[in-house]
Amino acid sequence: MVKVTERVRFVETDMMGVVHHANYFRWFEIGRVEYLRQAGLNLLEIMEAGYLFPVSDVRCNYKNPARFPDDITIYAEMRELTRAKMIFSYKIMREDTFIAEGFSANIFTNLEGKVARLPKDIYNKLEQFYKNNKMES
Amino acid sequence: MVKVTERVRFVETDMMGVVHHANYFRWFEIGRVEYLRQAGLNLLEIMEAGYLFPVSDVRCNYKNPARFPDDITIYAEMRELTRAKMIFSYKIMREDTFIAEGFSANIFTNLEGKVARLPKDIYNKLEQFYKNNKMES
Amino acid sequence: MVKVTERVRFVETDMMGVVHHANYFRWFEIGRVEYLRQAGLNLLEIMEAGYLFPVSDVRCNYKNPARFPDDITIYAEMRELTRAKMIFSYKIMREDTFIAEGFSANIFTNLEGKVARLPKDIYNKLEQFYKNNKMES
Amino acid sequence: MVKVTERVRFVETDMMGVVHHANYFRWFEIGRVEYLRQAGLNLLEIMEAGYLFPVSDVRCNYKNPARFPDDITIYAEMRELTRAKMIFSYKIMREDTFIAEGFSANIFTNLEGKVARLPKDIYNKLEQFYKNNKMES
Repeated sequence: MVKVTERVRFVETDMMGVVHHANYFRWFEIGRVEYLRQAGLNLLEIMEAGYLFPVSDVRCNYKNPARFPDDITIYAEMRELTRAKMIFSYKIMREDTFIAEGFSANIFTNLEGKVARLPKDIYNKLEQFYKNNKMES
Repeated sequence: MVKVTERVRFVETDMMGVVHHANYFRWFEIGRVEYLRQAGLNLLEIMEAGYLFPVSDVRCNYKNPARFPDDITIYAEMRELTRAKMIFSYKIMREDTFIAEGFSANIFTNLEGKVARLPKDIYNKLEQFYKNNKMES
Repeated sequence: MVKVTERVRFVETDMMGVVHHANYFRWFEIGRVEYLRQAGLNLLEIMEAGYLFPVSDVRCNYKNPARFPDDITIYAEMRELTRAKMIFSYKIMREDTFIAEGFSANIFTNLEGKVARLPKDIYNKLEQFYKNNKMES
Repeated sequence: MVKVTERVRFVETDMMGVVHHANYFRWFEIGRVEYLRQAGLNLLEIMEAGYLFPVSDVRCNYKNPARFPDDITIYAEMRELTRAKMIFSYKIMREDTFIAEGFSANIFTNLEGKVARLPKDIYNKLEQFYKNNKMES
């Protein structure tokens, strides 16, 4: 499981006085990007090699509102990996308060948006990290 | 079913050249707000009366990427209504191309975030519109 | 002068109950994009031809807060055009209430970000529209 | 001068492959909020005491594009303080590369948006920090 801390930004609130729900997907993305970075993947290189990784499905369940200027922790964990798809789950916490949980699915495509299979070397690196992380938890 | 048209904004794209997935929840919200407006609800008055309506759950399934400067249509439909909760489903289309679908759940709370029941007069107005719309479809 | 109407989105507000100041630059951009569209420019084609148009300077002066769900009008007008640069000014109004004014400068670059001169055919089209618009006002 | 480091988020990019210009005002705000926090101000308490601090003017001059996933540093410095207004200047750097600079003006108002003077105790705390910081630089 990968962990990132963030401080809620003023701009992330809305007129109900709490963080707007759409912003949680920005946090999930920060967690996912950090997971991939720790796995040794360079997203820019992957894009330059001709692969994109559009989100195909996301969900978020909101437990308690995040507010400005909370310090929150984003937990991201890979749940499934194939050469065509990766699935992550997320949890947002403010100390012991459970803020939200969710998941996302990304598919791999070429630059024209056609479904593609991730190249072996990238896939293997990611799979290695995924397996090591699962064993730990 | 309520229908709103929008033109994709440049700012809504990301470096993959398509609309960033988090922005779809902004579109869903536009549809939901328009539905409530057509039902005769004034969200500012409801907030001033001491009621909030935080999102408790959202989901989006992405079918085809929206791109700048697409003209898209947002369809919003209420699926369930109680004095404690409302559920909407959404569809985003670009002419005949199916862009995305999703749903959201909002709960009703007081200004302190405690679960509340929507006042009878507001609830009745909304229920009337909901029933009329269901009959039509 | 080019004119676009927009309805303030709930997500555009912040916890002070008004539209967050950064969102005005999204509105200015909508006006600029519409101006270029009316001038006959296709921004996607220009980008595919190898030209980018990064913003080099922006300013916004806020007169009166925009609030959800205001109907606002964005006015965009070109103020200066060379083959290396274009400058726009903007005004945001809610009926007779002056919401904000501002300006932006865009420079033209190639895909590597080096300063470039806009190709003659694109430049001429834009210059024609610019001159016609100035005469009208 | 107050200093905050941030990593560019994927969502902050646009289809030109760089950070969208409107997002720089989110960074400036992070710097300003941190400055006020270090000065000992609690923005939530100030808002609860009936004071708002809307932005009345902002400007940004873009020198070099920020890209995903750059590590950037935000520098924020107060330039002027009265009981009616505060002015900040900002600089964004990526190591030795100058990304952007800008400024903002905030005015103080009551909850109805009428111009107000900051209460003495809050003002004095802020002025003290401002003076100490100026002396250092």
